[in-house]
Amino acid sequence: MTKFLPDHLLNGYRAFVDKRLPQERQRMRQLAEAGQSPKTMVIACCDSRAAPETIFDAAPGEIFVVRNVANLVPPYSPDGEFHSTSAALEFALHALKVEHVVVLGHGGCGGIHAALSPAAEPLSPGDFIGKWMSLLDPVARAVGANDHMTANERQAALERISIRHSIANLRTFPAVEQLEGEGALSLHGAWVDIRSGELWAMNPETGDFSRVLGDAA
Amino acid sequence: MTKFLPDHLLNGYRAFVDKRLPQERQRMRQLAEAGQSPKTMVIACCDSRAAPETIFDAAPGEIFVVRNVANLVPPYSPDGEFHSTSAALEFALHALKVEHVVVLGHGGCGGIHAALSPAAEPLSPGDFIGKWMSLLDPVARAVGANDHMTANERQAALERISIRHSIANLRTFPAVEQLEGEGALSLHGAWVDIRSGELWAMNPETGDFSRVLGDAA
Amino acid sequence: MTKFLPDHLLNGYRAFVDKRLPQERQRMRQLAEAGQSPKTMVIACCDSRAAPETIFDAAPGEIFVVRNVANLVPPYSPDGEFHSTSAALEFALHALKVEHVVVLGHGGCGGIHAALSPAAEPLSPGDFIGKWMSLLDPVARAVGANDHMTANERQAALERISIRHSIANLRTFPAVEQLEGEGALSLHGAWVDIRSGELWAMNPETGDFSRVLGDAA
Amino acid sequence: MTKFLPDHLLNGYRAFVDKRLPQERQRMRQLAEAGQSPKTMVIACCDSRAAPETIFDAAPGEIFVVRNVANLVPPYSPDGEFHSTSAALEFALHALKVEHVVVLGHGGCGGIHAALSPAAEPLSPGDFIGKWMSLLDPVARAVGANDHMTANERQAALERISIRHSIANLRTFPAVEQLEGEGALSLHGAWVDIRSGELWAMNPETGDFSRVLGDAA
Repeated sequence: MTKFLPDHLLNGYRAFVDKRLPQERQRMRQLAEAGQSPKTMVIACCDSRAAPETIFDAAPGEIFVVRNVANLVPPYSPDGEFHSTSAALEFALHALKVEHVVVLGHGGCGGIHAALSPAAEPLSPGDFIGKWMSLLDPVARAVGANDHMTANERQAALERISIRHSIANLRTFPAVEQLEGEGALSLHGAWVDIRSGELWAMNPETGDFSRVLGDAA
Repeated sequence: MTKFLPDHLLNGYRAFVDKRLPQERQRMRQLAEAGQSPKTMVIACCDSRAAPETIFDAAPGEIFVVRNVANLVPPYSPDGEFHSTSAALEFALHALKVEHVVVLGHGGCGGIHAALSPAAEPLSPGDFIGKWMSLLDPVARAVGANDHMTANERQAALERISIRHSIANLRTFPAVEQLEGEGALSLHGAWVDIRSGELWAMNPETGDFSRVLGDAA
Repeated sequence: MTKFLPDHLLNGYRAFVDKRLPQERQRMRQLAEAGQSPKTMVIACCDSRAAPETIFDAAPGEIFVVRNVANLVPPYSPDGEFHSTSAALEFALHALKVEHVVVLGHGGCGGIHAALSPAAEPLSPGDFIGKWMSLLDPVARAVGANDHMTANERQAALERISIRHSIANLRTFPAVEQLEGEGALSLHGAWVDIRSGELWAMNPETGDFSRVLGDAA
Repeated sequence: MTKFLPDHLLNGYRAFVDKRLPQERQRMRQLAEAGQSPKTMVIACCDSRAAPETIFDAAPGEIFVVRNVANLVPPYSPDGEFHSTSAALEFALHALKVEHVVVLGHGGCGGIHAALSPAAEPLSPGDFIGKWMSLLDPVARAVGANDHMTANERQAALERISIRHSIANLRTFPAVEQLEGEGALSLHGAWVDIRSGELWAMNPETGDFSRVLGDAA
């Protein structure tokens, strides 16, 4: 066994080979031959505690996943710059023809925390996080300025606001608007409590989040 | 149970709650309280068949994950634009202080395929994928022009070249260079065969990839 | 026991006489009386690690074998010069009427390595290897010039390209073209990993190589 | 299991994997890492009944093998043409630094038979075999013209003459002459009776062939 990877990943890979691979082998082979055809794209956060494959117990081939800090979607901006998330969205809609896009937020998000701490010193001279989280500026200010809310409440509020904001940004893409209008695409918001594992889903009519399994869980 | 999410995700979440959550609950609670402290950042592809949590059987809190099309890292460019991947890297290095960054590629990558088909029509008028994959232009041309290799061979070659290219781009970030020099950070390349589940790791000296579990099991 | 041969060959011959000859004696007698009638010609490399009889566990009489450096086939050239490989091919097709020709390459081929090191000093003033490997010039350059691939990747790529090139050269022989057209002859490519013993076969439609026994055993 | 190779080779490979590979695996791995270092080069015939690996029960890495029709060695001719056998010899002497070169002939050789049938029609318009076997013209005529010998006797005689002729041609290579003079290289002749499996070795002083295991075998 090579030592070119961190031990914990090598041990994890060994566990995958021993336990899960034997069950998935046939499915993986079929997916390799036929190509992937996930029905759903998930836009999730990089946070190590919020992997959508874990939360949704997803099998290989089931979900196409973008992960960036704070699961953001920038607005449509065909300006010839590099747009990681927009590129993934384009691929999902036009090449994979997914039927669902889910924006999955989570509790305790470090990116959201940074967006609420605008005066903080940049993490590095490049200030990439500062710039990235400024995508939320249009919606973060009102929450950030509300000192009647506790820091935890501001955080939780912006985590949900941010999901709705990203869904609104998704609708700035002409293809999203068109496909949604045709009934070929649905947009969803979800949020996971990384402490309890509870999943909350957004009511598309009202924007409210409620527990997927109800209160009796 | 709400119906605000696709059925397959709701069913998957139910399975997570029934099977895995009971085992992870204590760990998740600790992680929520203490904050995440993953030792490793993984830069992976959006592909539904290449989830690093699956390949590495990763537990909540174990890996900080960026996923973009073709697991690319753009070069350091502190230009005030939105840089999703650079923001995640900055967060991982400066806030989380990860010790390892792994670029994880995979077989049958649609983004790499697009990079080798430059004459193809854009997926949409925005041509986000075309622009995104042009990050590989400096290294894609020699492979793309070699018609003595089969299409599959060109694909496999560029999948590996791209990983090395991303690792080289990582080193254009001043913090990466510094931390690596201090021995506080290691960069790794890996590639997974989505058909067989075989994981290959890059030898950091030579750049060659070899199977993690060795030859013919 | 004479001492006119190297000890290791004498010991090997003794082992052959003790172990294998008793089992093969009847078959050898029949083959001597009836003449050889192998169905398959194998064009293999001289490399001591890549004997086709070993890889294919071949019995006496089973395969007609040419071995030259890097298992090359020169193009058809009826110019009155000495053509070792063309002579063997002519014998196989017209006298033995084989049904299959297999070009068998292998990993770590010294000849391929030489073809990728054109600036290296000739091995001897005659530069026979340099001249011989120049048969690959038409296909070696693009790989050799691609410094985004590692030396090992260039080597592996040219090992496969070379097999396809030799198969293409086989088709420049009028008899090959005719017999293949009549369905009386099949051409095959194969490559053996001398480290693991894994055998890869070429898909005749695409030119791609895949493991004969499939993925992850 | 792919079907890209003839069935008998696939079955043979399966047998190799099942029976021999497990025993050879460690050796093969070492040979792949360290490179081949055979002490002996064998120049043998393509004949399916005369594989040197079989006769000498040779392990991977033990012998470097050229096989052409009738196990011939052309004289030194640094004329810029393609010389398959000279290239292999150059590689063996200068890169591998073998200590022994063995020319291995055999009974019932079709090439020798062709050399003794000069009036026969060419096998194909290219007449590659005719040209190739004309390397023996200097020594074949006297035997061929001797109608006091039976056809079988002429055949057996030329099989041995040819081996000595090839050894003489080996000595036209400056490097062979020099290395032999320094005691760093030994040349050997051998001949195998494909009917009985008996191996004969050439006495280097007299040129005579005698059974390796003596008459009592």
